[in-house]
Amino acid sequence: MLPAEAKEKLVRRMGPRGYLDRPEDLKLYEYDGSVDKALPDLVVFPRSTEDVVAIVRIAAEYGVPVTGRGAGTGLSGGSIPRLGGVVVGFSRMNRILEIDLENERAVVEPGVVNLDLTLAVQDRSYFYAPDPSSQKACTIGGNVAENAGGPHTLAYGVTTNHVLGLEAVLPDGSVIWTGGKEPDLPGYDLTGLLTGSEGTMALITKAVVRLMRQPEMVKTCLAIYESPEDAGRTVTEITARNITPVALEMLDGVMLRMVEEATHAGYPMDAGAVLLIELEGLREAVEEQVEQIREACAACRAREFRVARTAGERDLLWKGRKNAFGAIGRVSPTFYVQDGVVPRTKIAPTLRFIGEVSSKYGLTISNIFHAGDGNMHPIILFDARKPGDLDKARRAGEEILEYCIQAGGSITGEHGVGMEKNEMMSRLFSEETLDAIRALKDVFDPGNLFNPGKVLPTGKGCLEIRQPALTAAGPVY
Amino acid sequence: MLPAEAKEKLVRRMGPRGYLDRPEDLKLYEYDGSVDKALPDLVVFPRSTEDVVAIVRIAAEYGVPVTGRGAGTGLSGGSIPRLGGVVVGFSRMNRILEIDLENERAVVEPGVVNLDLTLAVQDRSYFYAPDPSSQKACTIGGNVAENAGGPHTLAYGVTTNHVLGLEAVLPDGSVIWTGGKEPDLPGYDLTGLLTGSEGTMALITKAVVRLMRQPEMVKTCLAIYESPEDAGRTVTEITARNITPVALEMLDGVMLRMVEEATHAGYPMDAGAVLLIELEGLREAVEEQVEQIREACAACRAREFRVARTAGERDLLWKGRKNAFGAIGRVSPTFYVQDGVVPRTKIAPTLRFIGEVSSKYGLTISNIFHAGDGNMHPIILFDARKPGDLDKARRAGEEILEYCIQAGGSITGEHGVGMEKNEMMSRLFSEETLDAIRALKDVFDPGNLFNPGKVLPTGKGCLEIRQPALTAAGPVY
Repeated sequence: MLPAEAKEKLVRRMGPRGYLDRPEDLKLYEYDGSVDKALPDLVVFPRSTEDVVAIVRIAAEYGVPVTGRGAGTGLSGGSIPRLGGVVVGFSRMNRILEIDLENERAVVEPGVVNLDLTLAVQDRSYFYAPDPSSQKACTIGGNVAENAGGPHTLAYGVTTNHVLGLEAVLPDGSVIWTGGKEPDLPGYDLTGLLTGSEGTMALITKAVVRLMRQPEMVKTCLAIYESPEDAGRTVTEITARNITPVALEMLDGVMLRMVEEATHAGYPMDAGAVLLIELEGLREAVEEQVEQIREACAACRAREFRVARTAGERDLLWKGRKNAFGAIGRVSPTFYVQDGVVPRTKIAPTLRFIGEVSSKYGLTISNIFHAGDGNMHPIILFDARKPGDLDKARRAGEEILEYCIQAGGSITGEHGVGMEKNEMMSRLFSEETLDAIRALKDVFDPGNLFNPGKVLPTGKGCLEIRQPALTAAGPVY
Repeated sequence: MLPAEAKEKLVRRMGPRGYLDRPEDLKLYEYDGSVDKALPDLVVFPRSTEDVVAIVRIAAEYGVPVTGRGAGTGLSGGSIPRLGGVVVGFSRMNRILEIDLENERAVVEPGVVNLDLTLAVQDRSYFYAPDPSSQKACTIGGNVAENAGGPHTLAYGVTTNHVLGLEAVLPDGSVIWTGGKEPDLPGYDLTGLLTGSEGTMALITKAVVRLMRQPEMVKTCLAIYESPEDAGRTVTEITARNITPVALEMLDGVMLRMVEEATHAGYPMDAGAVLLIELEGLREAVEEQVEQIREACAACRAREFRVARTAGERDLLWKGRKNAFGAIGRVSPTFYVQDGVVPRTKIAPTLRFIGEVSSKYGLTISNIFHAGDGNMHPIILFDARKPGDLDKARRAGEEILEYCIQAGGSITGEHGVGMEKNEMMSRLFSEETLDAIRALKDVFDPGNLFNPGKVLPTGKGCLEIRQPALTAAGPVY
């Protein structure tokens, strides 16, 4: 709920084109790429840090929840206003403020689309490394909030490795600058703390990010297998040969047939799995590595090994990978993307376990994932219109995550905790560690108004959480 | 001051060989590698996390400051017990607990000497990347506390990039685990927050660190210049050619003559500066890069370019670099090592400015530094026995840091803030940002007992800080 007085103040501050409040418009902001939903009371579109400060101050005055939103492509419900209140959409703060190629830095507003930054510098042979599959739509602010990854994190790391400084608005309306253009500034690492805090501590209004030089050569290879386990073993074999591809992606048979039918990327229709392997660097090194990888794949019984010969062929291979989620939409009305991590030596048994879960629940589960990082993305197909199906999908996902934890892994590699996995945090961390996390949240947001109900376990089910929202004393967990 | 009762409890808990309290022993713990000093009241040597918990609980009960200490090689006073109290020396917690090469991880106690970890895995072709010049003595616990760097951070990053999880004892005696064996675990990045917090939030009792595979080939080159500015320009030239050496170190003429006289590493006695450049990777790539770097050096008027032909020649070049501080000790009774950062495009003007400061104060200043990172280490030679000399050295250091800040840089690259630079933090960060840092410190350490008087500005001079130590209400800032 949003008190009428608060709404009036916000609407006046934002001006006629700066907000949305009609029910049919708010509907578009109740969901993201996950399976959860919650309606905002108002969506506002700031143009500046000052706008954000004004919004946050009004929200603080009336105890209204504030949830930041980039493009809404997140997969764990990070941008869903779980307790209603105000959604701050950053689509109008989308300027690239500075590009400093000599020092390999850019300063951007949070609403800049990830790929747009690369497009702005690619003619001068630079790129921005983090590349979530949604990079044509997702924003750098959202990437920072969720500490997003992507296929190329294997070599380049996730977003936090590319963020050097942040301007952020805290829940009391104060503005801080953390970090700067130099890496590893003195004092506590506030930049690192805010990166991945999923909008629960601050709203990011500017980010200083690292730009990287394009490599001299890129080679993209496709290795085709009869069995997913052979593909899994190849990952270990490549590591043992001391090669770090920039990307090492795996698609299982179910997935690659869906993808091929939708994109005609040239993937085989009858294989058990493929690996998509990309190498970058100096020409001599890349050519040598392609040969070593060819051997590693052959040693693990790959039935075929192709190397893209042209940029067109390379783009086609990636088109298959990056448009996979769209491809699933053609065959299943709804699907649930999981995001678990296992040590990469345990990929093969994890795939076997996922197969068992699939049989147990009678749901098709396809796998497409960052094999080099052990970052699994089992995609559970279900029909939300069929009673009980969503529940089954959730339970299947939870069993898979339990397995990941037991294997020494984690419940999320790159999609964040959001409202999807906050209750699972207590299986990964001790009560003492969670207390430390809670205490940090309290420092920044004692009133629990910034993205409430996310990241930390509430000890409550989904329904219970929506009930106590905004009682007289404001929302509390 | 340490209340007699608290001391008695600590002594009883530690046992006869578990502590030091004689004045002549305590003297050895009043300093580190910086120019500051303060005496502890007691030094204790825990053997386990349980010991650390017991120590911290007793200290909390009596309001006694607690300062962790690795090998005492720090350069900003991080391990100096500014307000007295208990120093916790980690020399007996020095076991490597686990080595997991398949997943490229090790679990160590904080007292493990940095180099010992590499020595433990080098036969199996692995190494631990962060390599401070003190790596033969300094400990991983100290490295984590200070977020230490080293010559190879250019390619591999500083300590925080190699720490995946921590066990830590908080000031209330509770034990938390942050992170784990997988990178980028969900929730706030507590591992990153504790790394570099300089013992002000927690005492680290275990660390999970990343191990890396040795490269196929290493080549070390020495480029010799008439002028430091030509050497500085070469750094930009190398970046422009899209080559990232693993190390790119610069020594100016003053420094290289001192080093050569002490180590006979084969450095030229008459040059204006040298660059020490190391390349690693696949044979083909390294050979190609050596040629490109040779061209870059020639284009910037290097008068000579040598490549080490044997491991022995390589070790000799590094011996000169890594033993530089010892070499200075031969010619100056005391020296003050500064640690500022500038954008690497500004190395040449910064060197000119340092020359001006040297003339202004009549103190010799030599330069040896991580040029690739723009991380300057001007070393100010002075005679502590000469009245006023230390003051002059401090003022000269401060002027240089001011210049670094103005140039868009920072007051420390890798040595930490400690008690040397805490007052300067307010020149780098706004009051709002410092408030956020203070609030974080309060969460972990509301009584301000863990390493008090460090990192954050106290707004007081050095003498004033020692005065109010441990009044009835305990130390306060």
